[in-house]
Amino acid sequence: MDPITQYLEQHRDRFVEDLSACLRIPSVSAQPEHREDCVRCAKHLADHLRKIGLTRAEVIPTAGHPVVYGEWLGAPGAPTALIYGHYDVQPAEPLELWKTAPFEPVLRDGKLFARGAVDDKGQVYMHLKAIEAHLAVNGKLPINVRLVIEGEEEVGSEHLGAFLRERRAELDADVIVVSDTAMLGPDQPALTYALRGISYTQIEVTGPRHDLHSGHFGGAVTNPANALASIIAALKDGDGRIVVPGFYDRVRPLSAAEREMMRALPFDEAGFLAEAGAPAPWGEKGYSTLERTTARPTCDVNGLWSGYQGEGSKTVLPSLAGAKVSMRLVPDQDPAEVFPKFEAYVKKVAPPGVTVKVIDLHSAPPWITEPDHPMLESARRALARAWNKPPAMIREGGSIPVMATFQETHGLPAILMGFGLDDDNVHAPNEKFSLSSYHGGTKSVAYLYEELARGA
Amino acid sequence: MDPITQYLEQHRDRFVEDLSACLRIPSVSAQPEHREDCVRCAKHLADHLRKIGLTRAEVIPTAGHPVVYGEWLGAPGAPTALIYGHYDVQPAEPLELWKTAPFEPVLRDGKLFARGAVDDKGQVYMHLKAIEAHLAVNGKLPINVRLVIEGEEEVGSEHLGAFLRERRAELDADVIVVSDTAMLGPDQPALTYALRGISYTQIEVTGPRHDLHSGHFGGAVTNPANALASIIAALKDGDGRIVVPGFYDRVRPLSAAEREMMRALPFDEAGFLAEAGAPAPWGEKGYSTLERTTARPTCDVNGLWSGYQGEGSKTVLPSLAGAKVSMRLVPDQDPAEVFPKFEAYVKKVAPPGVTVKVIDLHSAPPWITEPDHPMLESARRALARAWNKPPAMIREGGSIPVMATFQETHGLPAILMGFGLDDDNVHAPNEKFSLSSYHGGTKSVAYLYEELARGA
Repeated sequence: MDPITQYLEQHRDRFVEDLSACLRIPSVSAQPEHREDCVRCAKHLADHLRKIGLTRAEVIPTAGHPVVYGEWLGAPGAPTALIYGHYDVQPAEPLELWKTAPFEPVLRDGKLFARGAVDDKGQVYMHLKAIEAHLAVNGKLPINVRLVIEGEEEVGSEHLGAFLRERRAELDADVIVVSDTAMLGPDQPALTYALRGISYTQIEVTGPRHDLHSGHFGGAVTNPANALASIIAALKDGDGRIVVPGFYDRVRPLSAAEREMMRALPFDEAGFLAEAGAPAPWGEKGYSTLERTTARPTCDVNGLWSGYQGEGSKTVLPSLAGAKVSMRLVPDQDPAEVFPKFEAYVKKVAPPGVTVKVIDLHSAPPWITEPDHPMLESARRALARAWNKPPAMIREGGSIPVMATFQETHGLPAILMGFGLDDDNVHAPNEKFSLSSYHGGTKSVAYLYEELARGA
Repeated sequence: MDPITQYLEQHRDRFVEDLSACLRIPSVSAQPEHREDCVRCAKHLADHLRKIGLTRAEVIPTAGHPVVYGEWLGAPGAPTALIYGHYDVQPAEPLELWKTAPFEPVLRDGKLFARGAVDDKGQVYMHLKAIEAHLAVNGKLPINVRLVIEGEEEVGSEHLGAFLRERRAELDADVIVVSDTAMLGPDQPALTYALRGISYTQIEVTGPRHDLHSGHFGGAVTNPANALASIIAALKDGDGRIVVPGFYDRVRPLSAAEREMMRALPFDEAGFLAEAGAPAPWGEKGYSTLERTTARPTCDVNGLWSGYQGEGSKTVLPSLAGAKVSMRLVPDQDPAEVFPKFEAYVKKVAPPGVTVKVIDLHSAPPWITEPDHPMLESARRALARAWNKPPAMIREGGSIPVMATFQETHGLPAILMGFGLDDDNVHAPNEKFSLSSYHGGTKSVAYLYEELARGA
């Protein structure tokens, strides 16, 4: 066993402790009450970067939550990787569904449970621990690294674009490395070559000026909650196709070859459904489950609210009804084109007697790269070494808004090497990171640095 | 001025203070945390009944909130009125929309603002103050009275039926008197001869076993919030007709004569819409606003919830979506017939991939009486004396579940003499009772007792 691998094996338990310390900080970017926790988390990370031996480690303020920046540039002639991750996490609600507290990490059955365990603190720590191993064993890294760990990924990376554009010159690199994606199964590594984008909206329907008694007014004025339901029901047809005019105009059709490649992937549909806890797959007619979740766009309600939600009954005719509705977008859809079409359609199908407002809460373009780009070859070798099998080449259904920004600011090849699993409960109660993924991922990343140096 | 009228004029300010003391008790029947407040309110009322001179005043426990019972039977040979009211109130939420605290009554511009001001504590106190006046001035009442003031009207009067049935013998009377309805305008008294019933349901749609990441799972499983929206949208057609099969089977058509009488009523549609704060009337095709709110059934969403409702965006595919949906029913619809039809239809139109549960939260049959019953003549005379004009004969859109129970237990004529106004914000923030209604109503009730004695 080589000394790096040996070091990684020996310090596994402490690696879990180091990650746990970071998971204890509730850095929820969406909730204003956690603003200071985000700052605290950023400082904690910067301290850790210094501790493991990076030569520069800073908390850099933005108009939103700060960015953590770290670098080690002691390998002249070797390539430079710009490693991206995020320290912010999704809200933990609904809290009552967590088996253990979301910000008190607990190890159960070889899995570390906490909000952010896999998305994305755990995957950031794989890089920190791989860097630590190289610096501890060899006193140096095989490549140069710049780390950009942001605090707004879960709310649309609003201020990262400006951050990257302003520092474009000093953030020069040869490859982007991102670990915020998933494996295909517990022992099947994967490299992601496409991501979906998103257009996340809020629909607000206003009827009466204030809540009314449903007995006195019911039947004679438009009920905004009924109106909202009609609007949402009008978004898709019975075949699961989105009927917003022009919505599919820019969707790149799947080639026969790519469909064949996707069919050949060891995708476990039964396991996927079991994990979803859904009785049957359902979606756009004519596409497989894997195609539906990765290569086709969607339109999902993420939240609904109106009137009385408490116990018992309240005979209120509500004044307001609201919904969060998001569309996952695929290449070559552009959220800047999709949102106005969505807004116009929602207003068109709204029944009379209500006022409808559609808000663009956040968006990210979809992203795709050449799956056989030479830079990905190093990553393939690293994964094959760490897992004893070649990685699957996959599309992922989620969005990493910053990928489009990197495309614009750097125009570099990007390696999306992630170690999540379908049952990680990402964005849900009881989020976890399997230790096999954490340790296997750390090893993969340590090897990636070596392979990138070799490949250069 | 006769001595009773004089007494009522002289003690107006104290009558407002007495009512305010009762309004300070947050007797919200729907919310378990207010259980003790309901008991406290019942005791407060019983104390007050004793104080004004009733010969019996008790707090009688039920399986739910207690009933307050009072009586004065010192007029042998005179008719006995069973006076019904309720001391429980609707939840005050959303609290942030109240200009002053809901349980700290405040007098502004001749109106008393508080939850329960008009529905129904204020209207109960009209009777208490009318009784006080007669007993204070004459040492006796012109008729015998039994008061039944319940604590569960806002949650469906679940235990009142048993209470009345068990005590049918001792609760004998000649007429039922209820003050929980409205006037047609600030100086236009009204007698109500029909009420709508209600079937109040909760629809619960379950999709995935837990919340999922909309990027990883979106597109491949049925989203319960989208499914709920489809169900709700399928309840009515574009003409505002409810399409649940068989829903209208037992609806008694409006006769040409009644439609003509309704058309002749001084109904202020512009004022109604201004009060609703709605841009335009909308409802079942072929009916007027007044017909839609009083003589035709409805289907309204009273509450909606699913997924993430907080600030910002959360890319969650929710596990659950729920709605409170209520149908106002008209004679001769029967909630026991309507609910199963509704439940079957909701399950039938639910998309595949979700589980749907429909709960019967509460119900009340509609109620109608002969508008020219002789017993109503006394009420007409009393109102004409108090307001210097004859009352309008109207249907009301709300439900008083106990009317159907009284129909069953007593089978007596019932006088529905109420003094609410359209802008009272009943069941909404900033509920109020206009002092002109409170004092005019108290006078009307004091005269009613006299006219009932005369009419006998």
